[in-house]
Amino acid sequence: MTSSFPQIEQPRLGEPYLLTPGPLTTSYAVKEAMLRDWGSWDDDFRGMTQELRSSLLALLGEGADEFDCVPMQGSGSFSVEAMLASFIPRDGKALVLANGAYGQRSAQTLEYLERDHVVLDKGDYLPPRGSEVAEILANDSAITHVVAIHCETSSGILNPVEEISEAVYAAGRKLLVDSMSAFGAIELKPTEVRYEAMVSSANKCIEGVPGFGFIIARKNELEDAKGNSHSLSLDVHAQWAHMNKTGQWRFTPPTHVVAAFIEALRAHAAEGGVSGRGARYTSNRDVVVAGMRELGFETLLDNRWLSPIIVTFFCPADDNFVFDQFYNLMKEKGFIIYPGKLTVVDSFRVGCIGQMDDKVMRKVVIAAKETLEKMGVSSATPPLQALEERAKLAA
Amino acid sequence: MTSSFPQIEQPRLGEPYLLTPGPLTTSYAVKEAMLRDWGSWDDDFRGMTQELRSSLLALLGEGADEFDCVPMQGSGSFSVEAMLASFIPRDGKALVLANGAYGQRSAQTLEYLERDHVVLDKGDYLPPRGSEVAEILANDSAITHVVAIHCETSSGILNPVEEISEAVYAAGRKLLVDSMSAFGAIELKPTEVRYEAMVSSANKCIEGVPGFGFIIARKNELEDAKGNSHSLSLDVHAQWAHMNKTGQWRFTPPTHVVAAFIEALRAHAAEGGVSGRGARYTSNRDVVVAGMRELGFETLLDNRWLSPIIVTFFCPADDNFVFDQFYNLMKEKGFIIYPGKLTVVDSFRVGCIGQMDDKVMRKVVIAAKETLEKMGVSSATPPLQALEERAKLAA
Repeated sequence: MTSSFPQIEQPRLGEPYLLTPGPLTTSYAVKEAMLRDWGSWDDDFRGMTQELRSSLLALLGEGADEFDCVPMQGSGSFSVEAMLASFIPRDGKALVLANGAYGQRSAQTLEYLERDHVVLDKGDYLPPRGSEVAEILANDSAITHVVAIHCETSSGILNPVEEISEAVYAAGRKLLVDSMSAFGAIELKPTEVRYEAMVSSANKCIEGVPGFGFIIARKNELEDAKGNSHSLSLDVHAQWAHMNKTGQWRFTPPTHVVAAFIEALRAHAAEGGVSGRGARYTSNRDVVVAGMRELGFETLLDNRWLSPIIVTFFCPADDNFVFDQFYNLMKEKGFIIYPGKLTVVDSFRVGCIGQMDDKVMRKVVIAAKETLEKMGVSSATPPLQALEERAKLAA
Repeated sequence: MTSSFPQIEQPRLGEPYLLTPGPLTTSYAVKEAMLRDWGSWDDDFRGMTQELRSSLLALLGEGADEFDCVPMQGSGSFSVEAMLASFIPRDGKALVLANGAYGQRSAQTLEYLERDHVVLDKGDYLPPRGSEVAEILANDSAITHVVAIHCETSSGILNPVEEISEAVYAAGRKLLVDSMSAFGAIELKPTEVRYEAMVSSANKCIEGVPGFGFIIARKNELEDAKGNSHSLSLDVHAQWAHMNKTGQWRFTPPTHVVAAFIEALRAHAAEGGVSGRGARYTSNRDVVVAGMRELGFETLLDNRWLSPIIVTFFCPADDNFVFDQFYNLMKEKGFIIYPGKLTVVDSFRVGCIGQMDDKVMRKVVIAAKETLEKMGVSSATPPLQALEERAKLAA
């Protein structure tokens, strides 16, 4: 069967596909862009930084001119910390909407920052709802900011940011979005979802290599952020002001990673931008979910909450199923899957992002089938406890 | 004339040499190591992280077993901030020895961290001396830590860390060293210079590409650092503890940059380690300094203080000399030089680090000669004020 996404090529050098939420499988062209050195002070590189910033901003669509883009060295979590510290004033108070590891990490970051906060902890995967947010905000007038995770990759759930945003602004508060694993494949248009700032990173849906993140924020918030940050390195206002004045990053940028990202942005545009990229990932998800379900696997989430980013499957109840063995056998077949993060039942995850298409995802399903056979697992059905767990979502 | 460093190759694709203190010119093999993707969770990458840490530690020589190495995402300044925040307790007090931008940046970082500190500010380039440190420590018993810059690239001076260290430990205090631009080419043996922790980054004398830094610290300091950090992302203790427990970085590492760095470490070892690398850079410096002096240029520093990392030259007094024009003409000839950072007189800098040897440095001198001719600069002699400035150093 031919793919509808003809630009996808196989990884070279026999390397495995990374079915993970990033670092992910990137194109050879993206990596080839790293085959030269740049002086970070030089005009050529300043032009690259400008292209990076304006291309990312353009992904917002209408209303983008009210925002600016600030790239930040380090992993995505560095950019999340930078956003929280820069936009929540020291006397502010945050409500963190948590349903997995990344919500928890935001709360942990606020502990470090000594910023007052409360957490709506929905456990492993249940979505925070607009009505819950509205109720908490109605009962706590000290809360100034709400922090939401767009796609929580712990479970793969796509959280309902639209209704969360409505509740936040109806109560006159501000929304900060961690769209780390979603931005570039799932729309986050300011005309549809209001927010003050969002954050993502190079090695997610734009399909660059890891080494920096970026904050996209309203210009007035960037102005007002002066003096808020606890950290010189992570000060978004200072990075923004310096970049606008000089065209340079304040401190040495990961020049090669930036070059790769610019190539990745061009490929993203050629694929049709956010909608094109999102369509391929959705197709990836649909193929792997349908195929795995045929083998007897069950997803943690109902279809309604499944993101096109990463999918959590329950481990089979069969005693012959040992995750480490499954992982290693799948790796031998060229696919690196991702362990689960659920606290109650065993699970694993399959990422749908990166340089993969429906043809690849079909091969993933075949590899899983052959691996189960080799392990002597006769049924991929999960334990009863897993299905009970899932029933909570429907309740 | 043939070079004694035969492993050096010309940059491909017609790209210029980066005569800068990093990002610098790296070998093609280093960049080629980035031509594949790695899963950061996978065993293969964990092995790479382990190799990186143990290879860096081995550069210390005797006494290395009392230390551990903690890589940290972001630029070198991120690692400096991480070191300062993690090892200076919240009730500690630092003495920062500043003679340029990087000493000033450490002081600025401590402002952000709200750590008590004083600065010995020696201006643009004068070296902080052991006797001065001893006197300040004798008069201020609250000071717990001294922060020294090994090579201050603002001027290119190699600061006297041995005598500084002696003064610090004679007074029963602790030394933290920013060896960003020196480590890997200039020895920093714990048997010769006592210190608690030091920091450097991937894109300096090891000749990797930018994207992470690393902290090398005594194990007991790493233990004691728990709870000191102001930042989740930059918490050296947490990064260290997690890495030792899981073999993984806490947050997504710049996988491709790490792969490039491992290749760079192998080349560093093949060149003869710190002494071999240092010998090439010293030869680079000697060739460019001798050649530029022949053209009439003068160095800011006496030979005694010249580092083999980067050299500051005064701009000629001749009215026909315009730095931007000089920069662009040198770039056209394939050499990107670096602007100066002196506050009193105009200057520029030429880096000696990266994939360059004496043959390349001779070409730099020839390019400078031809450029002066093209600009109609008849003499490269600096203004009288520059020589008066330099006389301060001799005083």
